[in-house]
Amino acid sequence: MKRVAILGSTGSIGQQALDVIRASPDEIQVVALAGGKNSGLLQQQLREFRPRLFSLSVEPDRIMEGELVSMEEIAGHPDVDLVIVATSGKAGLGPTLTALRTGKTVAIASKEVLVMAGEIVVREANLHQGQLLPIDSEHSAVWQCLQGEEDEPRRILLTASGGPFYRYSEAQLDEITPEQALLHPVWKMGKKVTIDSATLMNKGLEVIEAHWLFSLPFDSIQVLVHPQSVVHSMVEFIDGSLKAQLGPPDMRLPIQYALSYPSRWSNADLPRLDWNRIRGLNFEPVDYSRFPCLSSAVEAGRAGGTYPAVLCAADEVAVDLFLNHRIGFTDIARIVQEALQQHRSVSQPLIEQILDADEWAREYALHSSLGRTTERERLRDHGKAANR
Amino acid sequence: MKRVAILGSTGSIGQQALDVIRASPDEIQVVALAGGKNSGLLQQQLREFRPRLFSLSVEPDRIMEGELVSMEEIAGHPDVDLVIVATSGKAGLGPTLTALRTGKTVAIASKEVLVMAGEIVVREANLHQGQLLPIDSEHSAVWQCLQGEEDEPRRILLTASGGPFYRYSEAQLDEITPEQALLHPVWKMGKKVTIDSATLMNKGLEVIEAHWLFSLPFDSIQVLVHPQSVVHSMVEFIDGSLKAQLGPPDMRLPIQYALSYPSRWSNADLPRLDWNRIRGLNFEPVDYSRFPCLSSAVEAGRAGGTYPAVLCAADEVAVDLFLNHRIGFTDIARIVQEALQQHRSVSQPLIEQILDADEWAREYALHSSLGRTTERERLRDHGKAANR
Repeated sequence: MKRVAILGSTGSIGQQALDVIRASPDEIQVVALAGGKNSGLLQQQLREFRPRLFSLSVEPDRIMEGELVSMEEIAGHPDVDLVIVATSGKAGLGPTLTALRTGKTVAIASKEVLVMAGEIVVREANLHQGQLLPIDSEHSAVWQCLQGEEDEPRRILLTASGGPFYRYSEAQLDEITPEQALLHPVWKMGKKVTIDSATLMNKGLEVIEAHWLFSLPFDSIQVLVHPQSVVHSMVEFIDGSLKAQLGPPDMRLPIQYALSYPSRWSNADLPRLDWNRIRGLNFEPVDYSRFPCLSSAVEAGRAGGTYPAVLCAADEVAVDLFLNHRIGFTDIARIVQEALQQHRSVSQPLIEQILDADEWAREYALHSSLGRTTERERLRDHGKAANR
Repeated sequence: MKRVAILGSTGSIGQQALDVIRASPDEIQVVALAGGKNSGLLQQQLREFRPRLFSLSVEPDRIMEGELVSMEEIAGHPDVDLVIVATSGKAGLGPTLTALRTGKTVAIASKEVLVMAGEIVVREANLHQGQLLPIDSEHSAVWQCLQGEEDEPRRILLTASGGPFYRYSEAQLDEITPEQALLHPVWKMGKKVTIDSATLMNKGLEVIEAHWLFSLPFDSIQVLVHPQSVVHSMVEFIDGSLKAQLGPPDMRLPIQYALSYPSRWSNADLPRLDWNRIRGLNFEPVDYSRFPCLSSAVEAGRAGGTYPAVLCAADEVAVDLFLNHRIGFTDIARIVQEALQQHRSVSQPLIEQILDADEWAREYALHSSLGRTTERERLRDHGKAANR
């Protein structure tokens, strides 16, 4: 039985991880759960899974069963074999490092951890025999395709659905509202990830993660638009042969694979691909020009240093402002780009320097957005006036 | 360095195997070559690769370098590590068994060996620690997808291009000439295989081979039509995840993988998939009704005994008659079906009984075709008369 801790158990990935564990109760013992602010949901989860330890990012407002500890304590606890890091933002960074330093396996769903501090995370994993497993469907696909292969791949092809607005013109992109953007058709995920999928920032962060997870140069990581989200990614080997991993668009599958690895579990709850219904799978090279978040991310990844931390932080602030109707959809990319241009990067940064860059970028993005917000409101008022 | 023998070196697969070896001269030593009737080509191959041993299925009509031996001697020779069996018809059966019984690795391209005697071949391989590797692109794809997987797959999906006549009506199929059928658009292969691809007999034989190669029940082997021939086959695992192997339609890739396994070799001669040109990959369930060779093959495989030997032999005779304009395209399936219906199968047959069934089926098919040939000529003359 694997002894598992879930950091971010009340989020979308965390809840789906518990779904998977519910279906295979003999394989997994839940030792600890860490929730965000939803103490009601965490209370329910504690009652159902009865872990010894729990954590909450706010003061509990009700009686919880188990021992209240910090996420760091959970991550370093000797009773934990595998830590699922499904926290949002940079919250998972410290616990990931702690878990790896105590030789644990970390199944990572949080993009920020590897994007902000990939070099440090990979180094610590190697130093302390910690193991990093991907949970993202794309990286899980690549990882599955690499099983049993002796040689480095020639390149990987990360697929991108393109999001709901892939065929929109620049002008149409400018008019997208948060409500439209949150009606994402394919995957079940949180708000931040849904917006990042629509801007393709998500794919850019995945390129950086892939660089660290699979030790591949950026030139060996290619993005392919594949609207059906059936092929979750591909690997091309040195002989020209490719392997692809396919499956229904359900995060429970890659989550379960990270838990069952190196084996696989039968799970009747999981959907199956129906080849009577799949007729065409389409692919096309990605259009960087209309989705500048993707190119900003790849550039930040290549440049390294504290640029990727700035990328993450500026994007997080910008997406939040967009969700609150403070800026437009295309302003997200502009704010991120400006922050990267204005940033003075530190090469081979320490964690503290990464966190400083994060802080700087948040302030910069917030400040830079103020002008845009005013401009946007002025234009909106102007539009209203013109429409009268 | 692997010491390799090629049985069938003057055939299509044999020549492509030598192409692969030419590109990786430091990895492979050619110890023996066995040709069919083309002594001129074999002479050239012997001069270029200088193997110690050679074999020819006819009396040599010129001076050949090396020692002339039988295919059996090559297959059992202690200097040989790996035998590529790329002979046509049942010629590879004896040498395959000899190679496996002496603990060698057999890379198998000949369909007949496993279809006719799969049970015996697999049993002998297991008894003597011989290893069977597939060369067919579909089976190579499945084998590549199974690398590193601990569990039995839930099912495999063999892809079929559908051949050049997949959209033809029954009436149109009846009118196909050998010349049309040999203009196969995708793969470079011999005449027999090209016709078998057009009737989908080829896919049926592959289903039987897959049953033996991967120890899977027939219900776990599904055929999917995929006209682009980019996905060479897929495996579905117990968790619902699938892996596919993709590549350009070039037999040198699976041949090289069988030689390089478990590693892969870079080979600049091999084509690569160009994702700027691939837009759509299509899939549809196969239509058994218009391609009765496929269902006959699967039925023969399920029934076992000597039925699969009858299938192969009747098909070989029928294809030959078709190529010589003696019967029509749809007669191939009819002759095969009749032979299977009339055959009295022996269960768990010995090799001798398999060869007896083969002999019986050849005679039956030839005899049964006589009526058809006469009927066909009568109809043709009638048609000519009517057209006057």
